[in-house]
Amino acid sequence: MTVSNSFAHAVRPVVPGKSELRPLGLNEVRITGGFWGHRQEVNATETLPHCLQWIERVGWLGNFRAAREGRSADRVGRVFTDSEIYKLSEAMAWELARGGDTSIKATIDRLAAEAGMAQEADGYLSTAFGRPGQPARYSDLEWGHELYCYGHLIQAGIAQARVQGSGGLIDTAARAADHVCDTFGPDGNDGFCGHPCIEMALVELFRLTGEERYLDQAARFVERRGHGRLADIEFGRAYYQDDVPVRDARVLRGHAVRALYLASGAVDVAVETGDAALLDAVIAQWETAVARRTYLTGGMGSQHEGESFGADFVLPPDRAYSETCAAVASVMLGWRLLLATGDPRYADLIERTLFNVVATSPAADGRAFFYSNTLYQRDRGPTAAPDVVNPRPTSNPRAPWFAVSCCPMNVARTLASLAGYVATADDQGLQIHQFTDAEIRTSVGSEPVAVRMSTDYPDKGVVTLEVVEAPTEPMTIGLRVPAWSREMATVTDPGGSTRAASPGRAEVTKSFVAGDRIRLELPMAPRWTFPDPRIDALRGAVAVERGPVVLCVESVDLPDDLDVDAVLVDPREPPVDQEGGAVVSGALSEPEPQSWPYSGESSASEDTCRRVSVPLRPYHSWAEREPSTMRVWMPSIGGST
Amino acid sequence: MTVSNSFAHAVRPVVPGKSELRPLGLNEVRITGGFWGHRQEVNATETLPHCLQWIERVGWLGNFRAAREGRSADRVGRVFTDSEIYKLSEAMAWELARGGDTSIKATIDRLAAEAGMAQEADGYLSTAFGRPGQPARYSDLEWGHELYCYGHLIQAGIAQARVQGSGGLIDTAARAADHVCDTFGPDGNDGFCGHPCIEMALVELFRLTGEERYLDQAARFVERRGHGRLADIEFGRAYYQDDVPVRDARVLRGHAVRALYLASGAVDVAVETGDAALLDAVIAQWETAVARRTYLTGGMGSQHEGESFGADFVLPPDRAYSETCAAVASVMLGWRLLLATGDPRYADLIERTLFNVVATSPAADGRAFFYSNTLYQRDRGPTAAPDVVNPRPTSNPRAPWFAVSCCPMNVARTLASLAGYVATADDQGLQIHQFTDAEIRTSVGSEPVAVRMSTDYPDKGVVTLEVVEAPTEPMTIGLRVPAWSREMATVTDPGGSTRAASPGRAEVTKSFVAGDRIRLELPMAPRWTFPDPRIDALRGAVAVERGPVVLCVESVDLPDDLDVDAVLVDPREPPVDQEGGAVVSGALSEPEPQSWPYSGESSASEDTCRRVSVPLRPYHSWAEREPSTMRVWMPSIGGST
Repeated sequence: MTVSNSFAHAVRPVVPGKSELRPLGLNEVRITGGFWGHRQEVNATETLPHCLQWIERVGWLGNFRAAREGRSADRVGRVFTDSEIYKLSEAMAWELARGGDTSIKATIDRLAAEAGMAQEADGYLSTAFGRPGQPARYSDLEWGHELYCYGHLIQAGIAQARVQGSGGLIDTAARAADHVCDTFGPDGNDGFCGHPCIEMALVELFRLTGEERYLDQAARFVERRGHGRLADIEFGRAYYQDDVPVRDARVLRGHAVRALYLASGAVDVAVETGDAALLDAVIAQWETAVARRTYLTGGMGSQHEGESFGADFVLPPDRAYSETCAAVASVMLGWRLLLATGDPRYADLIERTLFNVVATSPAADGRAFFYSNTLYQRDRGPTAAPDVVNPRPTSNPRAPWFAVSCCPMNVARTLASLAGYVATADDQGLQIHQFTDAEIRTSVGSEPVAVRMSTDYPDKGVVTLEVVEAPTEPMTIGLRVPAWSREMATVTDPGGSTRAASPGRAEVTKSFVAGDRIRLELPMAPRWTFPDPRIDALRGAVAVERGPVVLCVESVDLPDDLDVDAVLVDPREPPVDQEGGAVVSGALSEPEPQSWPYSGESSASEDTCRRVSVPLRPYHSWAEREPSTMRVWMPSIGGST
Repeated sequence: MTVSNSFAHAVRPVVPGKSELRPLGLNEVRITGGFWGHRQEVNATETLPHCLQWIERVGWLGNFRAAREGRSADRVGRVFTDSEIYKLSEAMAWELARGGDTSIKATIDRLAAEAGMAQEADGYLSTAFGRPGQPARYSDLEWGHELYCYGHLIQAGIAQARVQGSGGLIDTAARAADHVCDTFGPDGNDGFCGHPCIEMALVELFRLTGEERYLDQAARFVERRGHGRLADIEFGRAYYQDDVPVRDARVLRGHAVRALYLASGAVDVAVETGDAALLDAVIAQWETAVARRTYLTGGMGSQHEGESFGADFVLPPDRAYSETCAAVASVMLGWRLLLATGDPRYADLIERTLFNVVATSPAADGRAFFYSNTLYQRDRGPTAAPDVVNPRPTSNPRAPWFAVSCCPMNVARTLASLAGYVATADDQGLQIHQFTDAEIRTSVGSEPVAVRMSTDYPDKGVVTLEVVEAPTEPMTIGLRVPAWSREMATVTDPGGSTRAASPGRAEVTKSFVAGDRIRLELPMAPRWTFPDPRIDALRGAVAVERGPVVLCVESVDLPDDLDVDAVLVDPREPPVDQEGGAVVSGALSEPEPQSWPYSGESSASEDTCRRVSVPLRPYHSWAEREPSTMRVWMPSIGGST
């Protein structure tokens, strides 16, 4: 395998050959503090060791050695556990780029050695298939996840190659990729994996190495899907997007992570092959999914059954699945679309998803996670058990580990690489997509540029960019103005003049000098948000958002040990800002017991209830104190919105 | 096996040793026409032959012969397919009692012979376990369904014994029951089945035979459950009610059919052992489930995931699972509670469930079925395929057969035995629970009594009871006055005096003579129904009921090819009666396309829409014409209820 020199040090997950915006690497952007800086520290010091401990404890790492030694009966866990070791390896690579110490490098090498020992001579690598006592290789493409595991293996290998140059999993990954091209090429097995992932991994491996066959194979996998080749399972072929070809589909559907990984891979293929029709198809699917199948939090995939997108406007808060991994996958897709098109709306959804799902999943201590992210917790549930594997993906409280434990590692690799999503460049200048304390040092044209971003976001709405090193030529600095700011944002240029900034991208073009400052001010007053009337489960209910953060009411903040289903709120009065959350006017109502929940008269419960102030806090911080009920959407007084 | 003579000709499914009300058999009540008479005819002439054809066509009947001949590899279908042959056998027994011809008797004997040949010497009988190449007997109590299959075997055998006296499956069933008692007795395997069913079957076998060991074993199975002996699966132990002992549980939960079958068995045990605490526990569970976990249709089990009861007030119309078999099971439980307590509220729910789920499942032609019964069909879906097995339980349109095909047979056995649910007797007289054209001929005290019921119910609200043969002593005839009649029913006694009849039971006590008539008049004007405000998915929506029948709007009845999500209705104006349905005042609104379904302003879509009359038809008749969208609960104009 040849690593193309031009990309060897592109320390970032996605490096398109051509794009509207150039992604900046972890060697160019560093998050230095604030909300995400703290999250990154917890991720480094708590989550990564936690995950490492668990993959050893539950035996998933040991599966590689068992495979090598022919002990099939000793294999533990679901067929896709190999992928968790790869995702963790990828996370550790990004952490190393972020400044991790040498112990991380040693762990990366150890995990790579363990996994590599199970690789067979022809490049095949799975602990679950192909050895005596196991099902044959590729005998169950629907559920076997072998190609999916390669996808994560390749992503990890690429991350490590970009961070370290060599070592780690890249050689193992490349051998596996070669094996895949040999096996699933034009004259080979015409199948594809029940769980997409390898598509985007192969494109990225093409980007790393310049080997066209990887791109060709990725394109082949994308095109093969959607013709009903996989079995018609109980969930239907839409579950694994084998119902309609990617380029003909009109909306994201089926298993949410599968749908979003596939769409990400399709964008990668489209970008590298110049396939505008394929790119447009994915954009249209994204638009419909966002308009009709996405939670206020950015969460995707409302159905527990099949972990899937529901039908349009089926977005129940209490039965929200909103898998953490689907949020990670949505960030991956949004980032690819942002690079490909430059459209800031993708960064808007990335922000929403990061603050309200990715940040919600891990506990403050970084050692327990939500797998699914409900928007309405009706029962208080048990106290957290810090040492018990949760056999179920539905989790309240957060659990340290799951029988299917993709989410902790997906959060870990996202947080460790988060600096890569903050900013981009093009020939004219820089674009700031996410707001955080950060240092950016890159080049525009061929000239070095350095900028420092300072902010207390999302607690406060002021973002300051200070030019530390300016190019000699004029450049343009663009700042995303979130759609949620609703025409109330302002930008102040280095000359001190302030102007209104509409949602989109506010740009300042000039010959900058060191010390120049741009100030973006976003309106952080908490605000009422109303749902589309077609969402049955939200009719007559309202939510409160504050900046990019969705708020919620939690029973622990209510008087008299009441639960949140007693809360009505009054959207006729504006919410009042309070410590990163809000207080709204409302009432407490405890409905009468009834023997039958339908009657000939409408209820008017607000007549009999007492008025109170209702405190709301960020949704991402819920379930941190004690077993609690919680809701984001609250019925409004009068029942009408 | 000794069949107790006193019960040999008790031609009914449930014959408690002691009860408030005495169930009348199919030899005592005959449905002679009308809504249910027509359904019974279709069941006899279409559904039973249809099911017989399919169990042969898909190979489930052939499994018995394959087992006998040691051809394990030839077995087809899920592990519980044996039970479908038994349920069909039971249905045919009731049909024979209803007057079926000799070909039915020949089929019963043929099915019994086929099944019987697979029984092993010690009484064990399963086509899926225990032979070379199969898992060991009882090696998978969680999912193996062996005891569940015996439950249906025993029920079929009992039905046949009660109808025919001997022959059929009763000897096979008794041998299996003896084997169960030997294997799972106090000194044996301390397990129980992941799917309840055998509990009520064993109690009924005790009732048929007088053998105490069957009752003891049923009681043992009931008591063993709930202590976490079965595996903690992804759905949790609540799925098979192994989370909390029956007598400690406070609500029905988990897999709905499992929960309702178990509760039925627990009532049977409680009644025969005089265990008032156990009976009270089930009553309390029923009350909570009805108050908080039941659809307007009577459907139970809202969640697709795990086919289970959701949390309190989680009753989404669009994701309603409402399995047909759960409705059948709810009728079985309600009937047992009605007999045990005499409380007419159980007959109210039975009526609601029969008209709105059991009657909804089969197509008018009796050859296609809903497995789940949504209350809101958002997509039109495909045209019905009369010859294709549906791999999924979710079905629109109705399907002729399913990979798991319990529902057609459960509907068939319910319809064939429906006369058994119409009326009961006690020492003082008769109680009429369901309204239909029928002839009732039984005894009160030791005197013969005959009554003819005539009605156009549910199209019209007049029910006339004519005494055909009267006892010499005074007696009491009680007629259920449904709760839905809301203080607007009247009863006219044989003397011609009319009085208001409150919900409950209206009684007429006198020395009747032949020709005496009692007239019950129920208010059939369609009426608005409003939901409990705690049901998120129904907030701001209303439904229309007419008598016991839930109505719905279907797109095929709307102008301009609109779908039902365009409909708003105005509950300030009363619905107008129309041909068994209704017309309501409403409006059509087509919401604007949006890129994000949440905004800072509430929608007021009724301002921009056009007023129309909205025709509503019985929910049980929907999806009979062409692919259509449908909803029961409609958003109300103004959004407020």
